[in-house]
Amino acid sequence: MKIGILGGGQLGRMLIQSALKYDDEFYTLDPDSDAPCHNISYFTQGNFNDFETVLNFGKDKDVVTIEIEHVNADALAELENQGVKVVPNSKIIKTIQQKILQKEFYKAHHIPSPEFQVVWNSDEKIMMPLPFVQKMNTGGYDGKGVQVIKTEDDYQHLWKEASVIESLVDIDQELSVIVARNEMGETKTFPVTEMVADPKLNLLDFNICPVYLSEEVQKQIDSITEKFLNVVNSPGLFAIELFLDKEGKVWVNETAPRLHNSGHQSQEGNANSQFEQMYRVVKNLPLADTDAVTYSGMLNLVGAEGYAGKVIYEGMEEVLKLPKTYVHLYGKTETKSGRKMGHINVLADSKEELMEKLIKVKAMVRVIA
Amino acid sequence: MKIGILGGGQLGRMLIQSALKYDDEFYTLDPDSDAPCHNISYFTQGNFNDFETVLNFGKDKDVVTIEIEHVNADALAELENQGVKVVPNSKIIKTIQQKILQKEFYKAHHIPSPEFQVVWNSDEKIMMPLPFVQKMNTGGYDGKGVQVIKTEDDYQHLWKEASVIESLVDIDQELSVIVARNEMGETKTFPVTEMVADPKLNLLDFNICPVYLSEEVQKQIDSITEKFLNVVNSPGLFAIELFLDKEGKVWVNETAPRLHNSGHQSQEGNANSQFEQMYRVVKNLPLADTDAVTYSGMLNLVGAEGYAGKVIYEGMEEVLKLPKTYVHLYGKTETKSGRKMGHINVLADSKEELMEKLIKVKAMVRVIA
Repeated sequence: MKIGILGGGQLGRMLIQSALKYDDEFYTLDPDSDAPCHNISYFTQGNFNDFETVLNFGKDKDVVTIEIEHVNADALAELENQGVKVVPNSKIIKTIQQKILQKEFYKAHHIPSPEFQVVWNSDEKIMMPLPFVQKMNTGGYDGKGVQVIKTEDDYQHLWKEASVIESLVDIDQELSVIVARNEMGETKTFPVTEMVADPKLNLLDFNICPVYLSEEVQKQIDSITEKFLNVVNSPGLFAIELFLDKEGKVWVNETAPRLHNSGHQSQEGNANSQFEQMYRVVKNLPLADTDAVTYSGMLNLVGAEGYAGKVIYEGMEEVLKLPKTYVHLYGKTETKSGRKMGHINVLADSKEELMEKLIKVKAMVRVIA
Repeated sequence: MKIGILGGGQLGRMLIQSALKYDDEFYTLDPDSDAPCHNISYFTQGNFNDFETVLNFGKDKDVVTIEIEHVNADALAELENQGVKVVPNSKIIKTIQQKILQKEFYKAHHIPSPEFQVVWNSDEKIMMPLPFVQKMNTGGYDGKGVQVIKTEDDYQHLWKEASVIESLVDIDQELSVIVARNEMGETKTFPVTEMVADPKLNLLDFNICPVYLSEEVQKQIDSITEKFLNVVNSPGLFAIELFLDKEGKVWVNETAPRLHNSGHQSQEGNANSQFEQMYRVVKNLPLADTDAVTYSGMLNLVGAEGYAGKVIYEGMEEVLKLPKTYVHLYGKTETKSGRKMGHINVLADSKEELMEKLIKVKAMVRVIA
């Protein structure tokens, strides 16, 4: 089958890597001629935000999918009209692309998500009490396009564009759950993972699985994933990012309609990875079992501050000596401050051992130039 | 790093698949324009038995390795002279390529291997009593180039070319052990696997791991792998195929200087796979841990007799519904009788469960056209 992917980054690369177990042909579209997928797929250099480019790329494929949500969804809708299968469908991509529509989707379907106000332009009065979160309607990615307004002084920093103004959750834990639905309507949920963020770069830092949650919390999450999968009305793999607040209530922060950084530890930690699951969704195959086989965790390899140029993974050889430690690099030759260059998965027999190993590994390796 | 592989078949494909976790560039050489590696590496169509072709292919690579041993080893020796790293080195490839040299290698190093006589031409008198095995000196592969001569009548079928005449072992179990050595001299051994052969096609059928062996048998195997790794004098990953005879003695049948069918279940069954290990050998990195994490087994997907053409995997969707069952296809579009098209790995909690699952899966799927 000819499978087209909008985006040629690391998520696409790991999807293709995983799917090399099968017999399909992968085509990728990315503006960067050196994108991680460029030498492992039939590669087209081009802008996935451009209507004509996406249309031309997709029209001779059996199925088109995405590894980034900021793509031209109108072109995907047109491809659907022309009979090309698009996974997930253009409608849900459009909804999730725009924070305003995404929030309204949760509201309409009674999926708990923090209270919000829509602001279309900078003249509108903000009713939300301080502190609050501003999320740009479009273009947010990897923590960009999101800011916290804490004081009256901060009002001057407000972005003057369409956004969602959201009440600030008093976060106890940041959780994530990856769910999948195929065209036949079969659904499957990965075990919940906990994300531990680096406040400086606002990029995911550690990700651990499984997480022990009270029955009450697990029930709320099950209700959210069940509702979501019922109403999403599209095949797809989705990462639902959650906040557990200090009062034990679960809120949906946001959803990504694609493979997600918070699922990377599934490569070695679960019976099947999110990449295998995504492949099965794209092909409308029976979904894979997602059991956690042991404790697993992930840390991102991010370009160290102050370094740019040809990447060097300092300390990597020592890391490779560690048992149950799995290095995943993304085939990017150039590093820069904060760039996601790879990740390391670690397995362990207990949560304590896992955290110890993650902290140890993190201290061993530096992404420099 | 620029890594060149002679051969572009499934072993190369799975090596590249596994190594996509890292940042290297893979180049492959194969006569078949549609070889499994052709669309996931920088591909050169050409004959890996031709001196000039191999020399030209290898001269600008950082390291050249093999996924099939029937290559032009003189060209590899010339590449070594020119400063290109070759893994494993040309000398051990030459030794293993020729059954006569391979047998003499075992004899010289006191590695137990069935008694043998070398026959250079058809006039020589065969001293070995019946029944015996004839192995062609060169060109044997996948069970080809090996025959058993049982009766005086069979003498007429003797191949009239240089061969090894070997005493027939009264086989109790066929075992295999994959060993690795890097340039730094570090060595690592995978747990022993048992091979259950299909007598009709003479292709590996099931492969299971771990195998419970008596202390005495394990000691013999440890002694063989230790000796081999001590004397091989080359970095490399090697599959040592063993016979355990009915008296409890272990014999080396033959060695492959490369990735091997008997190690495929390591993809999901071991802490790291033979492909990860091979990558580390090629890059001279610390070797990976090889522990078996659970019971694992493998069955080959071989083209059914009587079918040739565009492949259909009958029953595959049902197989994909089974938990802990992993399908690996090789990207070959055309099937024919006996062609290796893929394999399926299965995990289980006990040997009984494993055998049950393997037999069940084998009955579910058929490779037809």
